[in-house]
Formats: sequence, C-alpha cells, structure tokens
Amino acid sequence: MTTRRQAHVHRLSMAAPDDVSAVAAAIADGRIDPARIRAVLAKTEGNGCVNDFSRGLALHSLRALLAAHLDPDELARICTVMSGGTEGALAPHWLVFTESAAPADAEGPALALGRHVTAPLEAGDIGRLAQVDAAAEAVRCAMADAAIERADDVHFVQMKCPLLTAERVAAAGGRVATRDTLVSMGLSRGAAALGVAVALGEVDRRALTDDRIGTDTGLFSTRASCSAGVELTGLEVVVMGTSAAWGGPLAIAHAVMADAIDVTPVRGALRELGLAGDGPLVPAQRARVAAVLAKAEASKTGRLRGYRHTMLDDSDVAASRHARAFTGGALAAQIGHGEIYVSGGAEHQGPDGGGPCAVIVARRPGSP
Amino acid sequence: MTTRRQAHVHRLSMAAPDDVSAVAAAIADGRIDPARIRAVLAKTEGNGCVNDFSRGLALHSLRALLAAHLDPDELARICTVMSGGTEGALAPHWLVFTESAAPADAEGPALALGRHVTAPLEAGDIGRLAQVDAAAEAVRCAMADAAIERADDVHFVQMKCPLLTAERVAAAGGRVATRDTLVSMGLSRGAAALGVAVALGEVDRRALTDDRIGTDTGLFSTRASCSAGVELTGLEVVVMGTSAAWGGPLAIAHAVMADAIDVTPVRGALRELGLAGDGPLVPAQRARVAAVLAKAEASKTGRLRGYRHTMLDDSDVAASRHARAFTGGALAAQIGHGEIYVSGGAEHQGPDGGGPCAVIVARRPGSP
Amino acid sequence: MTTRRQAHVHRLSMAAPDDVSAVAAAIADGRIDPARIRAVLAKTEGNGCVNDFSRGLALHSLRALLAAHLDPDELARICTVMSGGTEGALAPHWLVFTESAAPADAEGPALALGRHVTAPLEAGDIGRLAQVDAAAEAVRCAMADAAIERADDVHFVQMKCPLLTAERVAAAGGRVATRDTLVSMGLSRGAAALGVAVALGEVDRRALTDDRIGTDTGLFSTRASCSAGVELTGLEVVVMGTSAAWGGPLAIAHAVMADAIDVTPVRGALRELGLAGDGPLVPAQRARVAAVLAKAEASKTGRLRGYRHTMLDDSDVAASRHARAFTGGALAAQIGHGEIYVSGGAEHQGPDGGGPCAVIVARRPGSP
Amino acid sequence: MTTRRQAHVHRLSMAAPDDVSAVAAAIADGRIDPARIRAVLAKTEGNGCVNDFSRGLALHSLRALLAAHLDPDELARICTVMSGGTEGALAPHWLVFTESAAPADAEGPALALGRHVTAPLEAGDIGRLAQVDAAAEAVRCAMADAAIERADDVHFVQMKCPLLTAERVAAAGGRVATRDTLVSMGLSRGAAALGVAVALGEVDRRALTDDRIGTDTGLFSTRASCSAGVELTGLEVVVMGTSAAWGGPLAIAHAVMADAIDVTPVRGALRELGLAGDGPLVPAQRARVAAVLAKAEASKTGRLRGYRHTMLDDSDVAASRHARAFTGGALAAQIGHGEIYVSGGAEHQGPDGGGPCAVIVARRPGSP
Repeated sequence: MTTRRQAHVHRLSMAAPDDVSAVAAAIADGRIDPARIRAVLAKTEGNGCVNDFSRGLALHSLRALLAAHLDPDELARICTVMSGGTEGALAPHWLVFTESAAPADAEGPALALGRHVTAPLEAGDIGRLAQVDAAAEAVRCAMADAAIERADDVHFVQMKCPLLTAERVAAAGGRVATRDTLVSMGLSRGAAALGVAVALGEVDRRALTDDRIGTDTGLFSTRASCSAGVELTGLEVVVMGTSAAWGGPLAIAHAVMADAIDVTPVRGALRELGLAGDGPLVPAQRARVAAVLAKAEASKTGRLRGYRHTMLDDSDVAASRHARAFTGGALAAQIGHGEIYVSGGAEHQGPDGGGPCAVIVARRPGSP
Repeated sequence: MTTRRQAHVHRLSMAAPDDVSAVAAAIADGRIDPARIRAVLAKTEGNGCVNDFSRGLALHSLRALLAAHLDPDELARICTVMSGGTEGALAPHWLVFTESAAPADAEGPALALGRHVTAPLEAGDIGRLAQVDAAAEAVRCAMADAAIERADDVHFVQMKCPLLTAERVAAAGGRVATRDTLVSMGLSRGAAALGVAVALGEVDRRALTDDRIGTDTGLFSTRASCSAGVELTGLEVVVMGTSAAWGGPLAIAHAVMADAIDVTPVRGALRELGLAGDGPLVPAQRARVAAVLAKAEASKTGRLRGYRHTMLDDSDVAASRHARAFTGGALAAQIGHGEIYVSGGAEHQGPDGGGPCAVIVARRPGSP
Repeated sequence: MTTRRQAHVHRLSMAAPDDVSAVAAAIADGRIDPARIRAVLAKTEGNGCVNDFSRGLALHSLRALLAAHLDPDELARICTVMSGGTEGALAPHWLVFTESAAPADAEGPALALGRHVTAPLEAGDIGRLAQVDAAAEAVRCAMADAAIERADDVHFVQMKCPLLTAERVAAAGGRVATRDTLVSMGLSRGAAALGVAVALGEVDRRALTDDRIGTDTGLFSTRASCSAGVELTGLEVVVMGTSAAWGGPLAIAHAVMADAIDVTPVRGALRELGLAGDGPLVPAQRARVAAVLAKAEASKTGRLRGYRHTMLDDSDVAASRHARAFTGGALAAQIGHGEIYVSGGAEHQGPDGGGPCAVIVARRPGSP
Repeated sequence: MTTRRQAHVHRLSMAAPDDVSAVAAAIADGRIDPARIRAVLAKTEGNGCVNDFSRGLALHSLRALLAAHLDPDELARICTVMSGGTEGALAPHWLVFTESAAPADAEGPALALGRHVTAPLEAGDIGRLAQVDAAAEAVRCAMADAAIERADDVHFVQMKCPLLTAERVAAAGGRVATRDTLVSMGLSRGAAALGVAVALGEVDRRALTDDRIGTDTGLFSTRASCSAGVELTGLEVVVMGTSAAWGGPLAIAHAVMADAIDVTPVRGALRELGLAGDGPLVPAQRARVAAVLAKAEASKTGRLRGYRHTMLDDSDVAASRHARAFTGGALAAQIGHGEIYVSGGAEHQGPDGGGPCAVIVARRPGSP
C-alpha cells in the first residue's frame, strides 16, 4: 500500500505585516519544516485594495525568512497568497499549509492540498475570457497535484490574481478591460472565479462571454475565493478538498452563505464536522477549529434582506472594506474570535452579496 | 384608577438622509400622530464622526416635515437623536417613539419613555465633570418624566451630546479638554455616559475626576448610549425602561456585551422576552422585534479575545466606523437583518470593547 | 437706448454647510436683494463624491432662507450649484450672483450672466449622448438669457448634473451607463461638458458616440465646469461671459491650464484684467478679485510632466479629492488665499489633467 | 591642504514602494558607489500616517539591494528616512546622498552632509523632553560629522522618529504621552523638532516642559523636518548645510513659509541660488534643481489668511494628507514638477501652518 500524505495547518498571529516571528519560531522548534511547506496564506492589515502595501511587505518578509532555509527553486514552488484587509476585529495571521507522510493508522479520507502557479498574464487579458481559461486550467493542475479526483471533493479554491495599475494600463496602451484600477481588481477576481466554476463543472464555459464577467451575478462558483494583488502578474492557486490519498486528523467542509449574514449554512458545515450546538461555538469547540476561510462582498442590489445598505455609495471607504468588516463580525461571533480569513470582493464567488465559507476542523479534541 | 400610558415604536426605512417620506406616510395614514411623538432616533449614513453632515441633513428634513404639523414649542419638545454611521450592511432608518393612552386591558408593566433637554454647555465643559453632572441631572429628569422609579427598571439611556470643532476650540480660546475634534467626540460621549452611570448608581460621583474621563475603562454604565454631533450644544436624553404606569404589547430588556462579538447575552435578553431558539432568529421571531439599540467600540487593548485587531492603527478609517461594521455584523446575523441601531464610540458605555444592547420586542406575534 | 444690466458677485464665507448667516446678513443690510439673485454657487466641505451630504444640507439651508423672501416660482428660477470638496485649505464659501439695472455711465461691455434649468433626465440617459444634447441646448438657452451673442464671449459655463446611486441603478433595471456610482459622476460630468463644447463650437456633435464619453480625452471644452450631485435629476446651467448689454465694474477672463500646476495661463488671464506682477498677487491686487472658478482632475496618464502621480491608485482617497487639493494649492498660492471655487472631476473640461479657470475681477481698486 | 569633501544628490523616480530599479541602475553604471552613500531619503506613496506600510516596504527593498554591495556594518551606517505621503501629484522618489573627495578646483563652500543614529527610545519617552534631549544631541553629532561649525550654516535637518502603536502602548503599560497612535506621530515629530531647535539655538531648553510639546506653536525650528514611522524605535538624523570643508557645484538655501501657500520666501531662496525670475521656474532653471525638501501642516487655528479651512474637521482624510497635497501643489507650481519632498506634520517645524523649505541647486547650468 502506498504511503498516504497528511496535511497540516499552522495558524499563526502576526503583529505587523513584516512580522514573521511566529513562523520563524515554529521553524526553530520543529513544528514547521520549511521543506514541507506547500502554501502560505496570510490575512494582512492593509486596505485590501489597489494600494495595499501590507501584502507586498508580508511577502518580502516571508520570502526573506524562507530563503534562509530553502533554495530558490523550492521557494518558488510555495504558493503564497497575501490577502489584505482585516477590518473590524479581524486579526492578521498566517496560515501555513504543510505536507508530511501520514502515519499508517491515520484517519482518512482527510484534508488534501494541491497547488499550481501559472505564467504571467498580459495586462489586456486581465478580467477577460483568457483569464477564465488560464484559471480553469490552473485548478485542474492543482486538483491533480492534490490527488482529488472528483470536483465534489473540492471544498475551497484560493486563487491569487493580478490587477491593473495606472502604470500597467499605460504600458498596455489602454487596451484593457477597464482603466479604473479598483474596478480591475473586481474583474480579475471575477474572471478567476469563473475559471474555478468552469473547472468544477458549476458553469458552462460555452455560455461565457467577456461581457458577462463582472456583471452576470447568476454565474458563480460555490468554492472559489479570489484575491487580487499588485505584487503578481500570473495566477497562483491552492485547492483544498478531501481525498483518500491523504490521512490525518483534519477534515474540511464548506458552506455557501446566501447573503452577508447567512451564518446558518456555516453552522451546518461546522455541525457536519462534529461542532454542533446552540449559539456560538464554546471554547472546547473553538479549539478544534484550524482555519476559517470566507468571502464577503456588498450585494449589487444595494439591499440585504430587503433593507438598504450604503456600502456601494460610500466614496470614503471601499465597499469591500465594509463587507469584510460586516461579514467578519457575523462569522467571528459564531466562531468565537476574529482570526479568520475573510477576503473581500466575491465577484462570481457565491451568489451576489454572499459567498463561500470553508472550515477546517480537527475531528476530535486536541490542538488542530 | 389613573389611565396608564402606552409607548409605540415606529421603525421606518430611509432612502437618504433627507428622506422623510416614510414618516410622512405614517402621519398621512394615521399611524403616527405628530402631537404624540416623544422622541425620534435615526441611524443616518454619514461617517458618524466630526464632519458627518448626514445627521444635520436628516434633522433639517425631519423638522421641516414636523413643522407643518406642530407649533414651534411642541416641535422643540421632541427629542431628536441623529446617530451617524451605517457601516457594513447596517440600514439607515428612523425610530419614532410615540405615546398614547393605554387601553384599560393593556398588558403591563410595559415599555416606558421619558426625555429631557438641557441648556447649552460651554465648550470648555465638554468632556469634563461639568458635563457629567449635567448628564446625571438630565437622566433623573427623564426618569421622572417616564414615571420609572427604580434605576434597575431603566434599560437604555440614549443621550446626544455636543463635540468640539476647530471653530469652537478657537472661540473658547483653547481652554478645552482637547483640540482634536475627533478626540472631543469621545470625551463628550464618555462624560455623558459617566453621567448616566452616576444617575443609575453604577458609578460613585465622588470617585470621578476630569482625568478619569476617557481613560479609566473600569468605570461604565451598562445602559448608556451616547452620540456626539456637531448640530447641538446641549444634551438631549431619552430614557427607556419598564414601568407599571405604562401598558401595551411592547417590552424591553438589555444585555451587556463583554466584547465586540459577545452575542450570547443578547440572545439571553431576547430569550427573556420570549424569543428563544437555536441560532439566529427565525422570521416569525424577527417580525416581533421592534428595535435593537447597541453600542460598538474598538477595545483599547488592541485585542479581541487575545487576538490583535488593527482598528486603532488605521489612519484611513476611523476606529468607530470599523467597530460599528463589525459588531453590526455580529448582531445582524443574530437578529436577521441590518436595520438595527448600532452607534459607535462606547466610552464608559459598557466594558472596554463591549457595550450595552437593548431590545424592544412585542410580547406576542403580530407587528410590533 | 435700452437700459443695460449689471452683474454683481457676492463672495461670502460659510462656517458650516448649513451656515447661511453671511447671506442672511447681506440680505438684511441691503447688499443683496433676494429678488435679484440669479444664481448661487457654493463650495461646500463634503467629499465631493457620491455620499457628499454637505451639498444637500447647504441647499436645504439656502432654500429655507430664501423661501422667507421669495415665492416658490421665484425661488425655483434661481440656479443653485453646490459643489462639494474643499480639500487642503480651500475655503467653503457662497458665490451669490445678482443682477440689477446698470447706471447710465457704467463701463461696458461687462460681466454678463445667463442661466437655464432642464427637465429631469432618465437614469439611463446619464453619461450618454442624450445628456450631451440636453446640455448643449441648455447652454444655448442660457446664452440667450445672458444676451451673449458669440460663443467666444462665453468665459465660463457652470453646469450641475445628476449621478447614479445604487437606488437609481436598481430603479432603472440596470440599463445604465455604469453601475459604479462614483464612475457615474464622471460620466455625467463628461457628457455635460461635451454638451458645452458642442454649444460653443469646440466639438463637432456628429463626431460623438456614447463610447467616446469619458474616454476620448482629446475632446473637451475650454470653458465647461461640471459638477455632479445626488440632489438633482436634471441639468442646471449658469453661463458667464462678456456682453455689451451689460455694464459695471466687473470683467471676466478665462485660461486653460494644460496640467494640474499650469498657473502661467491663469497669470495671463489676471494680467489681461489688469493684475500683472512678479509672483503671487499682492494684497491690493487680491482685493480686486471677485471670484476664481477652476476645475481640477488627475491626469489619466498617471503622470504630471513626466513624473508619476499616485492619485488613480489610491483606494482610500478619491482621485478627485487629491486633485482639488493639489491644484487648489497651486491656484491659492497665486491668488493669495483659499477662497476659490475649485471643483473636481474635469472630464472633457480642458485637456486631460488640466482644466478651465475663470477669474472675475473689478477693473479698478475698490471692493469687487 | 586637506582634501575637501563633495556631496552629491541623486534624485531617482520610483514606480512602486519596492521599486529600487533606478537605484540599482545608477549603481550598475557607476553613477552611485554604494560605499559612498551617506543617506537615503524617500518619498513613498502610503498615507504617511500610522499604518503606512509603503515606508517599510521601500526600506526592505532598499536594504535588500544594498546588502548585495555592502557589509552589514556599512549598511547600518547609512541613514534612511522613508517619508510617506505623495498626495496630489507629488511623485514618489528616492534622494540618494553620496560623498566623494572634491576635485582640487571645486567651488566652495558647498553643500555639506552629516548624520547620526541614536539608540532606541523607550515608548514612554516618545513625545516628551527625553526625546527632545536625544534629538538635540543627535543634531550636534551630525553637525560635527558634517564639519559644519556654525548653527547658521545648517539649512535642513531631516529627522526620523518613532511613533506609538497600540501594541507599544500596551507593552508600556499605558505610561505614554498619548494612547492615540495618530496623535503620537505628531508628538514625536514635535519633540524631535524642538530638539533641533535647541541644538540650533532657536529655542531655550530651559523654557521647555512636556506640556509645551505639541501645544506651544510659538516654539519652533526654522530648519527641522521630522517624520515619524512605525519601522524604527530610535532617531535618525541627517544634517544639510554649508561648509568650507566641502566643495562642488551644489549649494543649499532655506526659506520659512509663514503659511501653507507662502511661496514668496521659497522664491527668495531660489533667487539667492541664482534662479530668479517672473512666475514659475522655466525649464532651464528647473533642470538645475537637485532637490526640494519642505514641511506642510494644517494650521491649528483652522484658518489660512483669515479664511476657514476644513482639514482638522475631516474624519475621513487625515489633516496631514490634506496639507501635503495643498502645499505640494503650491510648491510644485513654482518649481515646475511634483518630484519634491513634502512631508507632513510640521509640529514645531516652522510657524503654525507653515514650515521650512530647503532647496539644493547646481550653481550653474548642467545636470545637478
């Protein structure tokens, strides 16, 4: 019998975007073997929009740390997804995903990980069908990497995608999907998400056109989470799911929030993984939660359950910042703390105003 | 036997700060008798900080509407509290409180209302003990107005207080508690809240000094909600509680949130009023909720349950905006919509990082 | 011989958006006869973007003041243009334009005024050719009202136009030029400006298409100044120019700034009106300046004279706010104070990154 | 005769906070010898306030570049001052100051440079007299390093100082000058500036008390420029002046702007260095300007030349951002481009609302 693989999730607090001390400590005391790192996600404290330099600073700092342990090729193979925006009391943190050989008696099937990095996209392809296709192919590669065979066993797809800056727009001679840099983040996330949906069989590729990207809210993936950042030009994808080729204590489930405060499906996903109860998680349950990953977005209708919201009309604070704070509060109240990964801008990632939410939980008591 | 009084709460959506159409419609069809209005609270969509002109615009519009129905003296007796800030998917709305004679068979004791308006404060008194004393006296007057005899029967005290602008600081020759206008909002709210605490026997007046206002987070009222606004120079207070002198279907309870996501006590207050259950309120329960009033604030420790938050270090978005959005999301997920009155800046209003939350509910099914 | 008309400009400071005390005082002491007011422009202190309620508050307050002096028809005929945004040390102020009969010996030709108000636009017409045509017709009507015969004698056209809010987009069933409310402000200003350009013979109407609105920066008017506001649904236009049918001490000239700091043409316009000199205006010259009206905008190239600017990549502060502050500083340094009317968003109003600037000056010493 | 030293200024554009390509190119082609770098100032594109991560990112990137050329001790001796905030059309750029041996026939006296780095300050010392004393001593050390003997020959003192974050406040047990992190930036800059004033004989140390720091606007240095940043805990100072021990084409002069738009003294300083003329610099003059360094700040009076400004009442945009944009526009219009170093927060750096401005110019035509 082939040795199975085991996935580990290390959730580590950060005191500033360049604070890698918790990662360094975990490496120093042997909890993390740098050579076994497959992906690093981080929630950093910038505005999560175009000029969010907390992402770049975190990435520089992480790479500088890991470069002391890995050769450049190994380093380049680690997927890194820095997602800006810790509005409200969301807490900046690292999520370090590692892989080891599973013990022979490990439970299974269990949490499985796969990843893929693509070549750079042309500025003119951002937010268009060419990006959808590149994203779909990247998901397929990452599923193969994770030995996840069925699309239904995929529970979360985190993709990082590029955006347009004024410089890139100018360099492309203006032949771009939009000249508005903040708008470009949404189009890029939307095209990436539709790529996920195509790969998972949720949307028919033949039905897509450039025009529907960013506008047809009826098309979406229930498992895509896409972040745009100024610091990359290609796509980076991490797939999380369930596979019999993996063993260990961690399990994953996902829910689709129908709107910004729809925590009932999230409660259902937690119950599915053994964390049932009345009201918020109690401390013993909370200790079993390894990670929560969710998307948040302002509904384009300008309404939440019939009542007007003002996020889209606020010219001082980006709607994505409002949405992260609000849905972050809803989820944190359920989970019991704010160290959850809520990323904004959920274009084609769940229904309009809602979004996917994945939970990774240890099947039994004991630190995840 | 004396006729008892009855309190009514009309929660009405607003499409813009100057949208009084829902109030006008309620007057036109007889649901609201202008002469019976005792207080109007509103959640308006500005930034809730110094330069929030949505509050003034709403007030101008409301007064223009009511001036067509009331003489100036009657109009001046209505307490109006415009509270800015509907971050996230909080929904701008009016809360019109009216009073009528209760039917002889009305249930009781029931929701009771009282109010008071003070003379203008000197700019140099804002945020200092003189404001504490003025606030305490105002609460006592409002309790008498409501026929609430015991401090324990007070469940919510909404107070509106002034702030310092650059102009007022200059006019006062700089003899002010602070020159920072945003800081002045916090000091004014804090002094007002300590006045409530003194009136309700929660804090010993003799222990207070100017220095402790805004700094000693161990001193607080569990029922104060204070908003600062540029449009007034005195204090306006509305007291809500329970009194045998009042009858009718509405009942009130309050909870103290220990931190920004502490919804468990709020669930307890709802249960106390007959709205128990697993998870969020279901639609039939939600329909019985007349109003939810809460405070939100960023904890000064920079932490929520041990995890760092970044609200106090964000120079782009005021901490009070972050806090309203986050706690607003936590409460909206529990109640089931965003038309709740969450006001920011909870200095001395509940423990550091938490705050009071009052719920007004119809005792049985049927529109509140 | 027909009696000539005379235009007056009253520049009055405001201490807050609802501060009409300076206007009230001018009415009380006879400097302003309400019946002779033709237009009121104001620079108010909001963000100048979608949710700028300072404009609405100023307008409510102004109308309430004037309603005590004028009947509703007279009031409705006054053009009011509230322009938000006093970034940097720009000073909030009113510009009240009145008209009287000129003395027989008045100098001439002199400053001439005309105005026009259109019917409401459909939400679906905003930012499209239908708005261009409505704007061009409005300018022609206003020129006739001013007795300005030649397009070359028009020196400034201030137009106020509507914008799309989330509510209006939803009401229009989404058939709109854009769903992004901040973007809609730019498209509406752009379409209005192209209407001015068509009316003044600067742009050939036959060359225009919907697609070129907001994108073809080579098309512009050298005299248009357009502001978008949530408080109106039609167009309001005020034309300022020179006409032999008018007499009096005031004269007007205009300049086109080629970029954000191109003050040399403004110095030229001042010199043309008798205010020549080395460096900034000296106090005696400054006292002769009745009004300065200018547009400011971030260049779409992302460059100013070859050096990168970051206005378009700032997701925390709207580019229009940056531009008003920066060009406001450039002009204020030349004029000698910040009470100048700089409005943001100069789409098709002057070349990309630059804009028109008009100065109204008393021909000789003495208060304008 | 001793060989004189020569100072060089390399002004290099940056396309992003981590863009060191222009510095790298200058090193590659020999224009900059890394071993001769004495100081690097940069204007980066963050908000210039507490959570400005563009500064840290620029610093990380610069250090990574230089670490390839210098050993750690050499690297540590270079003063680096990253100043955030390029509002309006201010352009992000590097100012690299190098030193070489002057040719025997070099003109003199000429621009002289000195620097000093102090030990870390305690959090409790920030914004207090202990910081003033540390700053004064640092200036004296840097003057000695520059061989500038007379205080009058000092024309600009750039000091970088720390700030308080929520974390540092908590770590210090709250015994800090302020708990408000944005306020702490101002106090730290103010204490640093008073240290400069003491060292230059502008303010009597015996007259100072903790209370006057940040409040007594009558106390100031005419040559201090202080920036606060989260990335350091001590003080770093660079002194620029004139010394006979230095030779070369560059000369420096300074002006004190009395308020935000007071460009006349700046025109005087330029004239003093040979750049006289009517209006803005013409291109040939502009080419001789090596660097412009200035401070900008919102006047605490709330007024500019008698007219109200709204910078201090804007809760959406920090007053320092407004001030940089506005004064940046005033200076850029005079100089002819936006690649000037305007840093915000001018507490005790020039008179209230104004600030120092230094210009470094090549004495004759030819690239500086």
